Amino acid sequence: MNGFFLSPSLKNSTHFIHDLKLCKVFLNDDARFPWLILVPKINDVSEVFDLSFDQRHLLMDEVSTVSSVLKKQTKADKINIAAFGNITRQLHIHIIARFETDAYWPQSVIGAPNPITYDQSLKDEMLRLFRFLLNE
Amino acid sequence: MNGFFLSPSLKNSTHFIHDLKLCKVFLNDDARFPWLILVPKINDVSEVFDLSFDQRHLLMDEVSTVSSVLKKQTKADKINIAAFGNITRQLHIHIIARFETDAYWPQSVIGAPNPITYDQSLKDEMLRLFRFLLNE
Repeated sequence: MNGFFLSPSLKNSTHFIHDLKLCKVFLNDDARFPWLILVPKINDVSEVFDLSFDQRHLLMDEVSTVSSVLKKQTKADKINIAAFGNITRQLHIHIIARFETDAYWPQSVIGAPNPITYDQSLKDEMLRLFRFLLNE
Repeated sequence: MNGFFLSPSLKNSTHFIHDLKLCKVFLNDDARFPWLILVPKINDVSEVFDLSFDQRHLLMDEVSTVSSVLKKQTKADKINIAAFGNITRQLHIHIIARFETDAYWPQSVIGAPNPITYDQSLKDEMLRLFRFLLNE
């Protein structure tokens, strides 16, 4: 997509996985939680109601697909979905696999301090895996 | 809707505002933040991908409408939207007006301890206001 702008804070905290029709899908760089982020490829949008009717439906389709893939792959107890944007205003949707055994359960992990970034081999494995699953 | 079951934890922490086509809209009983909750009137659903294709699109329409109404009415700096459900599994979507001056900014307020429940007159005013705005 020509001229698409990705906020530096998103760029610096994620790894690109895959292009869907509306959104780019990223892996959040925190190995404590399987955590994907969807960013609509549309500039200057910060709220879901800034999207057109068709774009919003497409966003829901993609959120639903990615959530379902993440749940099936990880066997998570619950998928957490959120669009906050208090710090990074560019519209982005967090899709996080949560487990009753994870360190923050049942609290939100968005903004959880001290992320453990992926090492190269685990990162490569995650990117390969989700590229494969989202291409099916 | 016959036989619709509302989780006791949602029932005990909210006040009913209005029926939309898919969702019931509630006021979250915490006067610190203008905070609405949408609950699809469908039993045994905990993830968005448990909904049908049409239901998911309708959910997005209603999330978008309610977010837009809440933003316009409150002049919030940002709308926060989330479907977590780690504690209450019944699918419910938080739609929260956030301000750079609020006590938790920029952190999430979901699960914030010690809610300040509405007094009767402010609660009645909020219910009247949002019934009016969502009926327009």
